[in-house]
Amino acid sequence: MTSKKTALVISAHSADFVWRCGGAIALHAVKLGYDVSVVCLSYGERGESAKLWKQDGMTLERVKSERRAEAENAAQALGVKDIQFFDLGDYPLDMDRDAKFRLVDVIRAVQPQFMLSHSHHDPYNTDHAYATRIAMECRMIAQAWGHNPGEQVLGAPQLYLFEPHQTEQMGWKPDTFLDITDVWDRKRAAIECMRGQEHLWDYYTNAAQNRGNHFRRNSGGQAGGRTARYAEGFQSVYPRTIDEL
Amino acid sequence: MTSKKTALVISAHSADFVWRCGGAIALHAVKLGYDVSVVCLSYGERGESAKLWKQDGMTLERVKSERRAEAENAAQALGVKDIQFFDLGDYPLDMDRDAKFRLVDVIRAVQPQFMLSHSHHDPYNTDHAYATRIAMECRMIAQAWGHNPGEQVLGAPQLYLFEPHQTEQMGWKPDTFLDITDVWDRKRAAIECMRGQEHLWDYYTNAAQNRGNHFRRNSGGQAGGRTARYAEGFQSVYPRTIDEL
Amino acid sequence: MTSKKTALVISAHSADFVWRCGGAIALHAVKLGYDVSVVCLSYGERGESAKLWKQDGMTLERVKSERRAEAENAAQALGVKDIQFFDLGDYPLDMDRDAKFRLVDVIRAVQPQFMLSHSHHDPYNTDHAYATRIAMECRMIAQAWGHNPGEQVLGAPQLYLFEPHQTEQMGWKPDTFLDITDVWDRKRAAIECMRGQEHLWDYYTNAAQNRGNHFRRNSGGQAGGRTARYAEGFQSVYPRTIDEL
Amino acid sequence: MTSKKTALVISAHSADFVWRCGGAIALHAVKLGYDVSVVCLSYGERGESAKLWKQDGMTLERVKSERRAEAENAAQALGVKDIQFFDLGDYPLDMDRDAKFRLVDVIRAVQPQFMLSHSHHDPYNTDHAYATRIAMECRMIAQAWGHNPGEQVLGAPQLYLFEPHQTEQMGWKPDTFLDITDVWDRKRAAIECMRGQEHLWDYYTNAAQNRGNHFRRNSGGQAGGRTARYAEGFQSVYPRTIDEL
Amino acid sequence: MTSKKTALVISAHSADFVWRCGGAIALHAVKLGYDVSVVCLSYGERGESAKLWKQDGMTLERVKSERRAEAENAAQALGVKDIQFFDLGDYPLDMDRDAKFRLVDVIRAVQPQFMLSHSHHDPYNTDHAYATRIAMECRMIAQAWGHNPGEQVLGAPQLYLFEPHQTEQMGWKPDTFLDITDVWDRKRAAIECMRGQEHLWDYYTNAAQNRGNHFRRNSGGQAGGRTARYAEGFQSVYPRTIDEL
Amino acid sequence: MTSKKTALVISAHSADFVWRCGGAIALHAVKLGYDVSVVCLSYGERGESAKLWKQDGMTLERVKSERRAEAENAAQALGVKDIQFFDLGDYPLDMDRDAKFRLVDVIRAVQPQFMLSHSHHDPYNTDHAYATRIAMECRMIAQAWGHNPGEQVLGAPQLYLFEPHQTEQMGWKPDTFLDITDVWDRKRAAIECMRGQEHLWDYYTNAAQNRGNHFRRNSGGQAGGRTARYAEGFQSVYPRTIDEL
Repeated sequence: MTSKKTALVISAHSADFVWRCGGAIALHAVKLGYDVSVVCLSYGERGESAKLWKQDGMTLERVKSERRAEAENAAQALGVKDIQFFDLGDYPLDMDRDAKFRLVDVIRAVQPQFMLSHSHHDPYNTDHAYATRIAMECRMIAQAWGHNPGEQVLGAPQLYLFEPHQTEQMGWKPDTFLDITDVWDRKRAAIECMRGQEHLWDYYTNAAQNRGNHFRRNSGGQAGGRTARYAEGFQSVYPRTIDEL
Repeated sequence: MTSKKTALVISAHSADFVWRCGGAIALHAVKLGYDVSVVCLSYGERGESAKLWKQDGMTLERVKSERRAEAENAAQALGVKDIQFFDLGDYPLDMDRDAKFRLVDVIRAVQPQFMLSHSHHDPYNTDHAYATRIAMECRMIAQAWGHNPGEQVLGAPQLYLFEPHQTEQMGWKPDTFLDITDVWDRKRAAIECMRGQEHLWDYYTNAAQNRGNHFRRNSGGQAGGRTARYAEGFQSVYPRTIDEL
Repeated sequence: MTSKKTALVISAHSADFVWRCGGAIALHAVKLGYDVSVVCLSYGERGESAKLWKQDGMTLERVKSERRAEAENAAQALGVKDIQFFDLGDYPLDMDRDAKFRLVDVIRAVQPQFMLSHSHHDPYNTDHAYATRIAMECRMIAQAWGHNPGEQVLGAPQLYLFEPHQTEQMGWKPDTFLDITDVWDRKRAAIECMRGQEHLWDYYTNAAQNRGNHFRRNSGGQAGGRTARYAEGFQSVYPRTIDEL
Repeated sequence: MTSKKTALVISAHSADFVWRCGGAIALHAVKLGYDVSVVCLSYGERGESAKLWKQDGMTLERVKSERRAEAENAAQALGVKDIQFFDLGDYPLDMDRDAKFRLVDVIRAVQPQFMLSHSHHDPYNTDHAYATRIAMECRMIAQAWGHNPGEQVLGAPQLYLFEPHQTEQMGWKPDTFLDITDVWDRKRAAIECMRGQEHLWDYYTNAAQNRGNHFRRNSGGQAGGRTARYAEGFQSVYPRTIDEL
Repeated sequence: MTSKKTALVISAHSADFVWRCGGAIALHAVKLGYDVSVVCLSYGERGESAKLWKQDGMTLERVKSERRAEAENAAQALGVKDIQFFDLGDYPLDMDRDAKFRLVDVIRAVQPQFMLSHSHHDPYNTDHAYATRIAMECRMIAQAWGHNPGEQVLGAPQLYLFEPHQTEQMGWKPDTFLDITDVWDRKRAAIECMRGQEHLWDYYTNAAQNRGNHFRRNSGGQAGGRTARYAEGFQSVYPRTIDEL
Repeated sequence: MTSKKTALVISAHSADFVWRCGGAIALHAVKLGYDVSVVCLSYGERGESAKLWKQDGMTLERVKSERRAEAENAAQALGVKDIQFFDLGDYPLDMDRDAKFRLVDVIRAVQPQFMLSHSHHDPYNTDHAYATRIAMECRMIAQAWGHNPGEQVLGAPQLYLFEPHQTEQMGWKPDTFLDITDVWDRKRAAIECMRGQEHLWDYYTNAAQNRGNHFRRNSGGQAGGRTARYAEGFQSVYPRTIDEL
């Protein structure tokens, strides 16, 4: 356990954390001094590696290895302190009790101020919603005094749902916009580590610019808000507890 | 206009602001140095004054006068800087263009950091949802550069929806809990100014205690959150724009 | 099987039935002559026994034993005829085919007029929503003529969802309020059997009082409804079939 | 005011009450001894009288007159005690303050045990949802002690939303099925009074038969429920207050 | 693989495809030249065969056998090219990884232009919603380049959700009506193959007639739409991609 | 009336039609031979002309005049056949009976194959949702045989809701993606006519590119869909009626 503030990202496949919350990671890791941990439940080796599979003689192990290298490079670009690969398989992702408890161990070890994972729904990709369902279950287990008694139990960290692809099909509604202008270069660098999904580089650049517009609208509108050029959006699962509205 | 931070409460009837956000008002007015303004669109003279109407010889003017006195006393107990009575009538509340523009004038004069009003839905009391609908419309007008050109246009203040009666029937979901322990005595004093609705005193005391439990759960749970004894809940209409999750 | 009317409560953890439907149990068992059965799928031994786990040298077996004693005492106070402990484990609760069929056996044996279980959603406690999902699945199996052919199949009993903690976060909306004034003393007595969760005693007393207000509102409002002082709320899963509106 | 039980139907156009709740009317009026009143806010003379308008030389007055005669005949067949035609115009229906207060007068005079009106939403026919919105507003006004002080105020009658056309497009979900087998002949007779909309006779006969199936399913299913052959479905706006689940 | 257009129906129990999309099957198979394949995940032998189980000496194998014969007859009447029985058991239906991959194999072999399955929700019958959940998961797996590399991956076929029983309780909302007038006789013939569920023959005939009314309304209304006499409704899971609105 | 196919856009403010459905307009007008009509209910002169109002000595009439010129230029670039300015005022937009009937007259004159308007909800801009509500009301009136008897009544055209700003906050969910690659240059040219809102040019270019990605995903995904580079999304209000799934 660290005395620094901490955050934990739970990513169904090894590239999700880059597109969806790379800016939040870099901002907290580099600007705000958090230790940010990332758990990749799978490599997305079967379902999100089409480009690799089109190469002759490709094997599952080589796909995993290349996906892992990409994710590690991206994590480094973003300032991630610790990235773990659970290698649980994808399409479908499936977690037994042991895998859940392994995730609980990480949650308790990190004791995050906040957690990040996928949207509640995804009709295109059932692994995504599954990862969030498990993240909520494991958050609950980590809070249980009777799970591995003696360990420090988890408090009540917020779980932010990061931006899915085709947001409207997922029923995802962001309630929080984060200005990532200062770390945009790092996010773009991390994005460019994803060599197998080059068709998404500009997509998520467009998205970040348009979220910047949303940030400006909601921080001031035509009266002049904050001049954020790049932003990310998040949906909160739990209520906030505050001392000033 | 003031150089202090400001907040604006839009209350359909003259007692709503007490039950539903008296704690938020007192906290910001007394502890945090805000100038808090309250607009009561009506006195609730027809629909929320049953006890007065049961007295012999009661008249509409006397009901209004007693309701106004109660609201002024409560406002004083809460540290409200300015309370205005639009006297637009209730059951049903109805606002024409002039009334809307009068509300826009107040919004622009106050330039609030945040606004407070009713839930989006209320099948028991159509005045409540109507007030919020108008609050949103007037927020929009106040942002228009072409409305009374030359005046300072409004930025993008949050609109918090305070707690309705029978929350689940309203589809109201709080995303924000505010600790009002330090100002609870003021809220209870304001509540006791509402002599015509004594049956609600304990109801909203119970509610504040139970919201205190929700505050504790969401700020730490069984790992030990903040020891809030009284709280209020709010639902946000617009996304937040922030620099740290 | 009994010739008396019957009801069945399916409780994820061994204390849930007390807070959430203790009044309904006592009313039907004591005043209305039902045989009420309760199934506790787990003791809540890992996740809902923080106070016990803070004692030195606590073991899982001792926690279960103390939780069981509390639940038995509460059941007795409420007039429960039969309480069964499935001891399936909690945080997470997980039911295999055998456990489901065991629950089906109970449902068929009881042949309940109505069933009671948790809300459809609970982002804080995935065991709760899971229990209701299984209750619905087992209700379906109990209706199947091909399951243990020869046994009496189940009719179409209502499934009422009792009040969760933080109702608005669960998307729970009560459509039925039950007056429990006459049996309130029994519910309070049962609540006080829950020695490990004393922080919830007043919470659920407040809740019952405020639900009493909802009962009065919906049975007459300001024209004078029933003077219920304590009530419980329930959400129905299935439509009612009636002969008079 | 009557000493008998009473019910009030608020129908946007003069034929709606027949298709949508003719069975409920006849059952309560004929079998259960209620005085049932019907208010037709308009004749549906512009928008629901295509067949009449296709006749040569048709005028608005003649359409109204024929629609009124049809509705009166249907009301008689159903045992309606009192049918009133507000003649407020349709497509669009629009009610000013006087029209609302006129409806409040009827509600207070009837003092209904329950009210019936349209679904909350109808993208095909905005008059329908408007009628329900007004019904809820007028229910609220009728409860106000300050509206025509001295009159008997309204209690808290249920508002049932009867079956719209194309139910799924309206977001209407019935929570209550009423067995109308005993009065089906009366409903069919009332339906056949609607000479201008013969294309709907079989439609609503089919609907009543299929709702009979839903009644059977929900009252017993494959274990053998009530043998209802015809039923109607309703959605409740407010919670019920009861003494037995 | 065929050079003809293809469609795939995934049916939880062996009769579902008849009631819910028999018209769509016959229309595409007979009129439009598709090869239509049907997968029955179970026979509905435990939960949807009450009439058979009421016969003396009935066994599970005999129920399956009779259900299979009925389904094969219905499939023939509808022009189905290929019907497969996975025989996975019902009440509850449960699919392990092998069963999912078997379904993926079929999807890939068929390469359907569109797929058909159950509604997202069904509180009466958890097998139905489960089948659709698995259909979506298997559609995803079939799209994965890393699943059985070398096989032709699936494109992005629409998944239509066919009409459930008690549509409003399922939250099912049709966005597409298909005119099945030309093939109605085939659908009725297929329905009559279902000897064990005769109580549903008229139910689904009524439903098809009333959906015909919906077709007319939405294709022209009172201005004169298409004279469809029978129709079926479907809800789309994914957006359409088109070249003309 | 024309013998060509027709479409009608109802735009709350004079620029909305450009950002939100400029591609659909150009595609249908230029490539598909439709006569496309546009009604601008207001100029957006008060609320959407901040840049103009910041100029010295600006007047309402000059703002309107400049906004009109921009809209006419954009309409020309898109191939619009007819653009009408109702000049009803904005912030808030308000339509009395005469204004509604004027819109009905246009709808009947155009007899559109489909209509286009705003999303159902918009908490930032109440004019938008209001315009759609009125569009639905006027569609209904245009269908009424008793409205201006003798005129050709309207059939049942689809109403497509075009893309709002901050889609997720509006609860807008596109079910239809239209490939606008072939007319993108025209849409960009129209966008550049909007000199007062230059900050939105790139925003809606980004949006169109990302919707192109959604088109590709839904027309084929990783198996290779249509190579649309620009697209627009739409939500349908009414079900489709078709002859092939």
